[in-house]
Amino acid sequence: MNPSHLSGPVLVLGSGLLGASIGLGLRARGIEVFLSDPSPSAQAVAVDIGAGRAFDPAQSLSPQLVVVAAPPDVTAGVVAGALERYRSAVVVDIASVKGAILAELEAMDSLGGDGLSRYVGTHPMAGRERSGPVAARGELFNSMPWVLCPTQHSSAQAVKVAHSLAIDLEAVVFRFSAAEHDAAVALVSHLPQVMASLVASRLQDTPGPALSLAGNGLRDVTRIAASDPALWVQILGANAPKLLEIMQGVRSDLDRLINTLSAPTAPGARLDLAQLMAEGNAGQSRIPGKHGGPAQQYSWLSVLVDDRPGQIALLLTEIGEIGVNVEDLRLDHSAGLQVGMVELSVLPSRRVALVNELTARGWKVLQ
Amino acid sequence: MNPSHLSGPVLVLGSGLLGASIGLGLRARGIEVFLSDPSPSAQAVAVDIGAGRAFDPAQSLSPQLVVVAAPPDVTAGVVAGALERYRSAVVVDIASVKGAILAELEAMDSLGGDGLSRYVGTHPMAGRERSGPVAARGELFNSMPWVLCPTQHSSAQAVKVAHSLAIDLEAVVFRFSAAEHDAAVALVSHLPQVMASLVASRLQDTPGPALSLAGNGLRDVTRIAASDPALWVQILGANAPKLLEIMQGVRSDLDRLINTLSAPTAPGARLDLAQLMAEGNAGQSRIPGKHGGPAQQYSWLSVLVDDRPGQIALLLTEIGEIGVNVEDLRLDHSAGLQVGMVELSVLPSRRVALVNELTARGWKVLQ
Repeated sequence: MNPSHLSGPVLVLGSGLLGASIGLGLRARGIEVFLSDPSPSAQAVAVDIGAGRAFDPAQSLSPQLVVVAAPPDVTAGVVAGALERYRSAVVVDIASVKGAILAELEAMDSLGGDGLSRYVGTHPMAGRERSGPVAARGELFNSMPWVLCPTQHSSAQAVKVAHSLAIDLEAVVFRFSAAEHDAAVALVSHLPQVMASLVASRLQDTPGPALSLAGNGLRDVTRIAASDPALWVQILGANAPKLLEIMQGVRSDLDRLINTLSAPTAPGARLDLAQLMAEGNAGQSRIPGKHGGPAQQYSWLSVLVDDRPGQIALLLTEIGEIGVNVEDLRLDHSAGLQVGMVELSVLPSRRVALVNELTARGWKVLQ
Repeated sequence: MNPSHLSGPVLVLGSGLLGASIGLGLRARGIEVFLSDPSPSAQAVAVDIGAGRAFDPAQSLSPQLVVVAAPPDVTAGVVAGALERYRSAVVVDIASVKGAILAELEAMDSLGGDGLSRYVGTHPMAGRERSGPVAARGELFNSMPWVLCPTQHSSAQAVKVAHSLAIDLEAVVFRFSAAEHDAAVALVSHLPQVMASLVASRLQDTPGPALSLAGNGLRDVTRIAASDPALWVQILGANAPKLLEIMQGVRSDLDRLINTLSAPTAPGARLDLAQLMAEGNAGQSRIPGKHGGPAQQYSWLSVLVDDRPGQIALLLTEIGEIGVNVEDLRLDHSAGLQVGMVELSVLPSRRVALVNELTARGWKVLQ
């Protein structure tokens, strides 16, 4: 376990959800935090919730670390300004894209003396449906991935401080180059985002009765289509080259599918469809299971519950009494009547016993 | 509430998951059920679990209703055979596509006298991860949609019997024409299926470290990519024309996106991306909320729990004590450390009180 190299003070530039959460997390460890945000109200709220002290530009401050928590569009400029102003500070950013920001910085003429040696790009992969400082929490990063992207310029000391920030906030640290990071998030984050939006946009003119048949499949695929356009436009724009490559591959597969659907009884059509499905099976099974472990095959069962308060709690309490750990849990929303389905996954070796025991206790178990 | 017009006996042809579940549900209502399946073991298992009695082809049986629960490829043939053999029976099928089956039937020369007047296409939209009769449950259809697709040929009496089947199994009945049904499921079921598979297939060659960054967005979008290829090849093939139209629309949007990503700083590029995201927002918000009601905006909060048995149960029990109903619940799997995040949605009016009360009780609440 690496000891922390972060002693403070830390200056957080941008006190939205992430910046304020970083402030709260560091304050909980007794580290001195100063906050600044272009919006006076965002700054005031962050100060009010205890994320740090208001930064007064007139004060002379020599932070050990500056965290730039600004939107991707302006991040490079704010990083450059911080490297210039705070000549002994390590400066990190937390934007969702790394290559574009690094390219902007490298294109700048002067970066405060030893400039880029004091910069480390990072990306904490945490976030909530709500935004803004009022939603901030110090535990936001607990056990979530935090990617560090040291550049060829970054000094060992700067990397240690950046690493300490993530560790102090109880994140799980990954190290990638900026390019590797951008390729990875293009695939695991940006691709599903645009595909969810492409599916959801098809529903705009759907007649209401057709939508009544929507099940959890559609809901799952389109869940993240509710994301905030303003932020995503910046992310997709900044990571366009990496995402473009992936979308071209998708288009190629889509062309193949469209050809097949145009002549579904032609020789080989069935095989084409089976191949798409099988490739989907193969890719999906590679996604890591719980807590980053190997893709684990858990066993599923479903239990019908009345839609009254306390029913799910009662079910889980009884499962606890039976002594089986619930590995994953989902609710399946039904149409019309006031029942719901709780889908549970457990270790395969525990499944039969659980089904038998729950059934004996009067629960309606579907397998 | 319509009284049931179903008195039996019912002959179920095909005793896989759906056929056996239908048998179990009808037996629970005291209706006499006979089962037949080309696979002797599938038939034996279904009989063993109480889904009905083994049908002996030598016996003379005059069923009130024949339920064809066969794969889509062979359904029309089995329906035709049943209409021919059981001259006073209503015959329904339960396949996921309706138009192709009806077209096959209409193309046949003779269909047992008054033939198609005794046929009603139906589609119960229920199902589980597991298949086969061993997974069957009589409650499988409770509060799930069951679509009836009476044809221009169907008699009123046949429709009443088909309707009774769905009602007796406690489903929620929808009426669509075969064409409306196929268009609807193409959109709400087949489109998300192929898009999930298209995304997941991109992951086949991804380096492991990149996949470590996978979050719930990717998991949600690719969840149904684990579906069974053999069945889906038949469904997609049979509904190809309706799905083709939709996929051509998706390709058009994808082309637009690829153009934009190729020149992300060109004038209008940002607007294009914003429009895709906004259209996704708009479509997603039209999906009905819980129990088929209007798309409800619930409020979300997340609570950190230790990954030990009983923790989620304890949390939900306390929420029950606080007196707030949990409208939806998801687990967020973290990387590395042994904590998990429980995401809950509640009525907006109850959220603040719940957050305050949980925090007071020592829970770590993220907003």
